[in-house]
Amino acid sequence: MGEPRVLTGGATAGFAVDWTGRFQGHTPAVVRPRDTAEVAAVLALCTDAGVPVVPQGGNTGLVGGGVPLLGEVVLSLTRLSQMGPVDHAAAQVTAGAGVTLQQVADADPGLDLGILIASRGSATVGGAVAANAGGLRVLRFGPMRAQLRGIEAVLADGTVVSHLAGLVKDNTGYEYPSLLAGSEGTLAVVTAARLRLVPRLRDTVTALVGLGGLDELHALARQAVRQVPGLVSAEFFTRTGLDILVAHAGLVPPWPGPAPAYLLLEASGPGALDALADVIGDREAAVGESAADRGRLWSYRERHPEAAGFLSVPVKVDVSVPAAQWVRLASQAAAVVTDVDPGADVITFGHVADGNVHVNIVPAASADGRHEDAVFSFVASLGGSISAEHGIGALKAPWLPLARTDAERALFARIRSASYSPVRAPVGNQHRDDAAQ
Amino acid sequence: MGEPRVLTGGATAGFAVDWTGRFQGHTPAVVRPRDTAEVAAVLALCTDAGVPVVPQGGNTGLVGGGVPLLGEVVLSLTRLSQMGPVDHAAAQVTAGAGVTLQQVADADPGLDLGILIASRGSATVGGAVAANAGGLRVLRFGPMRAQLRGIEAVLADGTVVSHLAGLVKDNTGYEYPSLLAGSEGTLAVVTAARLRLVPRLRDTVTALVGLGGLDELHALARQAVRQVPGLVSAEFFTRTGLDILVAHAGLVPPWPGPAPAYLLLEASGPGALDALADVIGDREAAVGESAADRGRLWSYRERHPEAAGFLSVPVKVDVSVPAAQWVRLASQAAAVVTDVDPGADVITFGHVADGNVHVNIVPAASADGRHEDAVFSFVASLGGSISAEHGIGALKAPWLPLARTDAERALFARIRSASYSPVRAPVGNQHRDDAAQ
Repeated sequence: MGEPRVLTGGATAGFAVDWTGRFQGHTPAVVRPRDTAEVAAVLALCTDAGVPVVPQGGNTGLVGGGVPLLGEVVLSLTRLSQMGPVDHAAAQVTAGAGVTLQQVADADPGLDLGILIASRGSATVGGAVAANAGGLRVLRFGPMRAQLRGIEAVLADGTVVSHLAGLVKDNTGYEYPSLLAGSEGTLAVVTAARLRLVPRLRDTVTALVGLGGLDELHALARQAVRQVPGLVSAEFFTRTGLDILVAHAGLVPPWPGPAPAYLLLEASGPGALDALADVIGDREAAVGESAADRGRLWSYRERHPEAAGFLSVPVKVDVSVPAAQWVRLASQAAAVVTDVDPGADVITFGHVADGNVHVNIVPAASADGRHEDAVFSFVASLGGSISAEHGIGALKAPWLPLARTDAERALFARIRSASYSPVRAPVGNQHRDDAAQ
Repeated sequence: MGEPRVLTGGATAGFAVDWTGRFQGHTPAVVRPRDTAEVAAVLALCTDAGVPVVPQGGNTGLVGGGVPLLGEVVLSLTRLSQMGPVDHAAAQVTAGAGVTLQQVADADPGLDLGILIASRGSATVGGAVAANAGGLRVLRFGPMRAQLRGIEAVLADGTVVSHLAGLVKDNTGYEYPSLLAGSEGTLAVVTAARLRLVPRLRDTVTALVGLGGLDELHALARQAVRQVPGLVSAEFFTRTGLDILVAHAGLVPPWPGPAPAYLLLEASGPGALDALADVIGDREAAVGESAADRGRLWSYRERHPEAAGFLSVPVKVDVSVPAAQWVRLASQAAAVVTDVDPGADVITFGHVADGNVHVNIVPAASADGRHEDAVFSFVASLGGSISAEHGIGALKAPWLPLARTDAERALFARIRSASYSPVRAPVGNQHRDDAAQ
């Protein structure tokens, strides 16, 4: 009855490639369990047989983490799509790994998921936990890790570890939910999560501010963080990306004259408009309060991930630095890239308050890793991270020693080994294992 | 020069007993390193020699976790008292393990530490991380774990693991700061932490509300969480504890007639007073805006940990449950205790929004564990935690199987083993190791 649990042959094609087409793998089989017990049975069987497995959620990742690059079996979790009733006393819900983030956000009219990412209609709870998804509201609600109030996961030998009661405080053991968040499938397969829900934002105001440069932009964002109690987002882009979107995506500029840099601020709650107005002062700005006006202002920022693609196949880099280094990163990233590829176009945008810049590159020279190498080395020299929110996956493993010491990587490898029961051989997704070190 | 780094004989007495006097140990030596390198040298030496070590911070713990109960060497971290400059761009600071929480809170006039606990003048950063301290503002800022933006720690073999750049987003490895938070010294010795600072609260309003029962109290607290954007605290106590404090501590009742239950709400920011007034309605309440008035209202709640001690030597139990079970826990805890000790007095108070109740018991019968056993079994039947914020330590280890499955405890034991370099023998604080399982 129903659809088959195991796909083979041509039916596996869509599971063996990522949505951008940059990562193409192959797989003997896609297994689609319907509940945690079936996940446990599949993992125990594959571990006993020495067959590597790649867990896959909505397949919306950006670093190839869910693609069977070495011919692994794909463990697709999308059928773990059960969601429990919303617990109004706790403002929490338990969602299966295959539930999409949008479904969680829609579970209750008065509540919302703290995480807002562009791929929310396809991205799943399990994948968002494994990647520790970030997005547009991290400054207010934290990343996916901060939404976790409990987790259920299956170890490689089939052992089920479950702690889903939804306790706000619990100092009875190691913080396993936080450890799994961002572990990218290297420790266990997440089958369900207990998620906190946040009050749905009301009286939301969005403002787009034009600024003379990135130093002024960063200072204004900092001021907003300090002075606007209901601040939800502080996002940036520059004239470079906006000009491409105006030329190729039909966007109309927010006002006639261009600005070198744009800061999008969003706040909610009583007094949000006044507090934003105080911070913005007499700078050039557009303010939206209706859903339509806010959507129009957000579109400038939200369509930036597409911008580079209008020119050619882009190289996408996701990095973060300490706050004091943000202006250097955001303003010098383009020069760092053109040092190794003088003909490249470089588009920057991202999450100011998180120290996070997405560097999208349209190469002129060969995309042979030189662009990533240049940016990652620069970021490492600033004390930053080579993966702010996208993860390591298959893409960034070669550069991990730039970001983490030998002692840290050795410790992580031992923690990874600890996830396997000592009586069975530690097998699994070996290229993902390398990536996590 | 200066004070000796190693204390022996009678000079160790103060380090071998906890501040409540309930946990009395003994130690051959107290070692007081001055920097991370000295911590590493001591741990490497002790590990090589097979000498167990207990790390100790401000010695303010409530579960015996820092006391050398089995004759361990005490590694006192209080001399790691260096604090870096406040990073205003990031609103962060790096503090040595021996810095007190009050010193962090006082580091900048516009910023504050998110954690507020009664022992803040003595409790240290290292101890607060190891215990994952909670306190009076968890609903707004989270526990100590949520304040961490980086950690430095030393493994048993002397390996230093350091990641202190203060990145808001970093998906390049396992979340080691969160793993160490609440690990109670079983994984590594915390030597420094990078801490986020929060804007110092302004326009703070405190309200004490009298209520007819704990169900009504819980409903009002939930309403405040939903409707008061600047809510910081939601604390409770009952007439039982208040009557003791009035009789023995000289407190004057907040208003003439007694109420069965009291809810303390605190909120800050523009509109806090109006938002609180809307929620409280026409209930009997006292509201304070000045520091003096607020302090007077807080004293009813903050002195509750002393109340039981006015009657006799208390048994103190710290538990939490899912929100939907809170009323059952808070209203039935006394009956659960008097079932096993009919003459006992039971005083309850704590953090409503965290599902957390402190059950303080004045036994009539022998304090042989029966009181803890009754409360912990009841809490386990409600899906709760036997340690909300105090930790496991030496006190609660026997009851841990009530809260965590065999699979979880086995996983935790393997993670603990992973902290030790595989080329050296895993030695250390064995009774603490047991406690963490």
